[in-house]
Amino acid sequence: MIDARARLLLVSNSTLHGHGYLDHAAKAIPAFLGDRRRVLFVPWALKDHAGYAAKASERLAAMGIGLDSIHSAADPVRAIGLAEAFFVGGGNTFRLLKALQETGALQAIRRRVLSGVPYIGSSAGSNVAAPTIRTTNDMPIVQPVSFGALGLVPFQINPHYLDPDPGSKHMGETREERLVQFLEENEVPVVGLREGAWLRVEGGSVTLEGTTGARIFRHGEAPVETNPGDRLDPLVL
Amino acid sequence: MIDARARLLLVSNSTLHGHGYLDHAAKAIPAFLGDRRRVLFVPWALKDHAGYAAKASERLAAMGIGLDSIHSAADPVRAIGLAEAFFVGGGNTFRLLKALQETGALQAIRRRVLSGVPYIGSSAGSNVAAPTIRTTNDMPIVQPVSFGALGLVPFQINPHYLDPDPGSKHMGETREERLVQFLEENEVPVVGLREGAWLRVEGGSVTLEGTTGARIFRHGEAPVETNPGDRLDPLVL
Repeated sequence: MIDARARLLLVSNSTLHGHGYLDHAAKAIPAFLGDRRRVLFVPWALKDHAGYAAKASERLAAMGIGLDSIHSAADPVRAIGLAEAFFVGGGNTFRLLKALQETGALQAIRRRVLSGVPYIGSSAGSNVAAPTIRTTNDMPIVQPVSFGALGLVPFQINPHYLDPDPGSKHMGETREERLVQFLEENEVPVVGLREGAWLRVEGGSVTLEGTTGARIFRHGEAPVETNPGDRLDPLVL
Repeated sequence: MIDARARLLLVSNSTLHGHGYLDHAAKAIPAFLGDRRRVLFVPWALKDHAGYAAKASERLAAMGIGLDSIHSAADPVRAIGLAEAFFVGGGNTFRLLKALQETGALQAIRRRVLSGVPYIGSSAGSNVAAPTIRTTNDMPIVQPVSFGALGLVPFQINPHYLDPDPGSKHMGETREERLVQFLEENEVPVVGLREGAWLRVEGGSVTLEGTTGARIFRHGEAPVETNPGDRLDPLVL
């Protein structure tokens, strides 16, 4: 079940090969925001908050969207309370989650999204919309209080989902092998979201958009391929 | 500083492309163990403990080494107290560390290695020899009590270290980018250990062995290439 008021755009990646920052989502983002024209940006997944906010601000300005960054707010929780919409940027998921937990932003953002404030996440920002960060690809460079995240959707996301490379000589686990290990220990479904794909969550329903599709992993079942335009509700809710 | 009594063989990977399980280390392992001819195996990084122990037992038998597996010990800590040597196998580092913490094996193994009992780790088994698991490549499929690990060496290990692929169209972070992110948040040096390489720790000193070399990452400095046969002491101690 997803709260019917929750509206989320969960993007696999910020930059698609051969394109500029957020180019592949340049139509989807303003369309999703509708008449809301200002986002509160969360840059905490990267180290350089000011640089990251400047880059995002410039890109969103070109879409006609204004940006305030939470790193320059005197009171982050108050800034969240006033936000028209959220944009949580990619980077390291552990670093992002730790900051969300330590500032109280985690509960504050969750509360507002469940009351209808739109949420855009990219990469790490999509990971933290899930119940936990247990399906991130990132290195655990810092230790959050727990792996518990926003829980705005009842399934996990694996951004930058990568199909196995049959020619590889590298013996580390493939992405699919890693997600199978996740399902050995957990029962929550996982959306393996390829670069170029995103999920639109609205009215309690989940639609796959973008160009590249997603692979759905469920406990005790074979993975399922899904295509742009598909409603994922029966697979993940 | 490394305790002069500690003896460790920290291997990047269990299987090298084109070879069988542990083939690339088939001479190094018996040589390292000397006249010790029985190891206590820790299979907790994989789900199927019995299957993993059977596979390891068969491979080590071909090297003339006997194996008991900790998963079939009535009292794991007692088994650790009696072991002639340890072999901690690869798999998922979070799953391995959680089991080491929950059973008390973490403190027990640490104590025995610091009193001179040899330790062989492969992949996840090498990760947990470091101060923390913050440089693992694995997915955080379960949540350990903390990221604190055995701390048998004062540096981090990144097993299966992978050089950037200039032809890749995938936009996820390269391994080097991930380790740079680690050093944004931590000051501990990291040994990026390529598949086919291992570290031999003896007499308070660290030697790089195998065929493929390692890349050393230190806070605020450019990465350094090292070659088989190199003493890494000045870089990592």
